[in-house]
Amino acid sequence: MHRTRVRVAEEALDANTTIAQANRADFDRESVAVVNLMSAPGAGKTSLLEAVFREGMGDTRPGVLEGDVQGSLDADRLAHFHVPVTQLNTDGGFGGECHLDANMVRTALPEVGLDEIDLLIIENVGNLVCPAEFRVGEDAKAMVCSVAEGEDKPLKYPLMFRTCELVVVNKIDLLPHLDYDLDALLANIESVNPGAEVIQTSARTGEGVTGFRDWLVGVGERARAVA
Amino acid sequence: MHRTRVRVAEEALDANTTIAQANRADFDRESVAVVNLMSAPGAGKTSLLEAVFREGMGDTRPGVLEGDVQGSLDADRLAHFHVPVTQLNTDGGFGGECHLDANMVRTALPEVGLDEIDLLIIENVGNLVCPAEFRVGEDAKAMVCSVAEGEDKPLKYPLMFRTCELVVVNKIDLLPHLDYDLDALLANIESVNPGAEVIQTSARTGEGVTGFRDWLVGVGERARAVA
Repeated sequence: MHRTRVRVAEEALDANTTIAQANRADFDRESVAVVNLMSAPGAGKTSLLEAVFREGMGDTRPGVLEGDVQGSLDADRLAHFHVPVTQLNTDGGFGGECHLDANMVRTALPEVGLDEIDLLIIENVGNLVCPAEFRVGEDAKAMVCSVAEGEDKPLKYPLMFRTCELVVVNKIDLLPHLDYDLDALLANIESVNPGAEVIQTSARTGEGVTGFRDWLVGVGERARAVA
Repeated sequence: MHRTRVRVAEEALDANTTIAQANRADFDRESVAVVNLMSAPGAGKTSLLEAVFREGMGDTRPGVLEGDVQGSLDADRLAHFHVPVTQLNTDGGFGGECHLDANMVRTALPEVGLDEIDLLIIENVGNLVCPAEFRVGEDAKAMVCSVAEGEDKPLKYPLMFRTCELVVVNKIDLLPHLDYDLDALLANIESVNPGAEVIQTSARTGEGVTGFRDWLVGVGERARAVA
């Protein structure tokens, strides 16, 4: 009895991996680099992307796959920048899921237009737990962490911080108004993910946005260098 | 085939309801009022409870059940106030769950000491999606929403805002430093949960904390009035 149940769980895991690999093959065929961008609700993923698109991405043609439980508020914001945006709601066929998985992303791919973009930014559902557990075929995982959330988050949600190669520390314009120990945050990130890249930004003032933009533009090149 | 799978899903739902009712019976037997307190990561649940315990709760003897994926940072903070705190980690036997359900709460109850408290505050895992879906036997659900998260959260996570009878709008000391439309937030809350109670607080300055404290103290009385 127990054995059967374990086997079912393994099949479910394999299904996600299999579908992530199929997504990956499609991305490779169209030479599209893919970033899985995650954060807690309200950390500023969409505001940062607005700031990046305002600066422009040079020769890189971006597209966004916008994951939300409901609605299209963020997609509507990003569409102003004439970037192709596809909305993926998890409450329709997916039962209000708190994360994107490979199959949800695959379901949306026909709408994305991979042949028209070089970089697909997947804005995941705002959540520091489950999105970190599902590969979707991405080249890189990145997360945004707002200084308003406190310094302890890497210790409370270690898998999320460990699984990302970049941590964007956002809303640094608020630092003078918070009792916040930035060094403690950096030490906490280092303790769960030694060597993780950290970029400090303010989507509001534009500080650090160029660094994040350059990181995004470089995802494809770095992936090819590793392969 | 499909029918079998649907039936299994219904049994799973029923299990949570059944166990929530068993929790409820235990709470009633010991005359303990119970609040399920939820929020996104870093909205300030623990800081607000610290502020409440600093003010004191009069004759009401509080206890806290602290839900986290990993670690006991928040429990350690609250234990300073000589309030009985029980840590419940979801990564042990529960596989890193992003929420508390009735069974997890039930597992922790023997440690809580219901006979020594009048009010049990269950601090749920920081997440605006799944915690709203699971009753745990509580009298009331409340949530904390930080103004640093943006005004759009009720529209993006409607189930969470709809399921709570109280929304605590926290970190209002930051309002002068944010491009934030408080009226828009209040309208968004009203649109998904008409008549929801809203209390504005700053755990940092203490503003509004007395109102939240009084609401917590009144949970048991309001529940008895309804019953």
